[in-house]
Amino acid sequence: MIKFCNSCGAAVAYRIPEGDSLERAVCAACGHIQYQNPKIVVGCLPVYGDRILMCKRAIEPRYGLWTLPAGFMENHESAPEGAAREAMEEANARVEIEYLYTVYSIPHISQVYMMFRARLLDPDVSPGVESLEVKLVAEAEIPWDQLAFAMVKRTLEHFLADRRAGVFVPRFGDIRPPQR
Amino acid sequence: MIKFCNSCGAAVAYRIPEGDSLERAVCAACGHIQYQNPKIVVGCLPVYGDRILMCKRAIEPRYGLWTLPAGFMENHESAPEGAAREAMEEANARVEIEYLYTVYSIPHISQVYMMFRARLLDPDVSPGVESLEVKLVAEAEIPWDQLAFAMVKRTLEHFLADRRAGVFVPRFGDIRPPQR
Repeated sequence: MIKFCNSCGAAVAYRIPEGDSLERAVCAACGHIQYQNPKIVVGCLPVYGDRILMCKRAIEPRYGLWTLPAGFMENHESAPEGAAREAMEEANARVEIEYLYTVYSIPHISQVYMMFRARLLDPDVSPGVESLEVKLVAEAEIPWDQLAFAMVKRTLEHFLADRRAGVFVPRFGDIRPPQR
Repeated sequence: MIKFCNSCGAAVAYRIPEGDSLERAVCAACGHIQYQNPKIVVGCLPVYGDRILMCKRAIEPRYGLWTLPAGFMENHESAPEGAAREAMEEANARVEIEYLYTVYSIPHISQVYMMFRARLLDPDVSPGVESLEVKLVAEAEIPWDQLAFAMVKRTLEHFLADRRAGVFVPRFGDIRPPQR
């Protein structure tokens, strides 16, 4: 929650600026508007032979569960550059990013996931500081009941189905909160 | 440029937080970190018969040049919802979003464009406040020398080529600054 102007330090008020249609944090002193927008998470599905690189999370949320390497995209990088950087940070994995594969909007947390297919260039991987463990898993070894995120499950399911079919089809969709 | 903490109003300092690898705006008083991340622009290519909906910009940047309806994605919406919203705001256009079509990273301005193919449900369109003029253009009428953005040119080129080929293939790529 934004309480102060990050340009002049005065208090903000929430109101709809002229010509806008949504409430924004507007500085009562200098008029500066702080916008809040969805964040992009970039990641990849690194493949080596018939195996997939997965990471066991050493951080919250979902500590101890398995994921594909992914994280917040940074300013001044492209999405594929960010996806490759995350593979290096989380698994010391050198990857070649191939193609955008799945894109999921997650409106209730204001995030968009962009997952790429990637070629793992070297099977010598090891946990980065955000991973407890990393491993190359064959299809039969995927820990389906210990996956960290819905996007991981969906991306893996699409990948395995497409690999069997022999053709990879990019997918996009939404992930909504689980019904209670 | 962030100068003050938006949580407590104190001055920030730029430094690399523990466990991070990039400089962030860190509050010297309360420790709050303000992250800055790439913004998502969502839009669509609305088609009615053989014609495409285009908008002449009434705002900077690129005032007076032609674009496809697109704008910053908002929190708590999906990418397709945002794309449909922008078509309504810029051209009073009711669209059915079909499929994610082009995704471009623009690292030097820290933006990612996500453009969808869409079906224009009703040809009765009119300029919103951000448009000087809107129109449905056939291929021969596209104002190639008055396009606002590289992503518009590329998306239109792909669309026209794919339409001729009879199959639409999603594309992703980067847009880099023009060489001087």
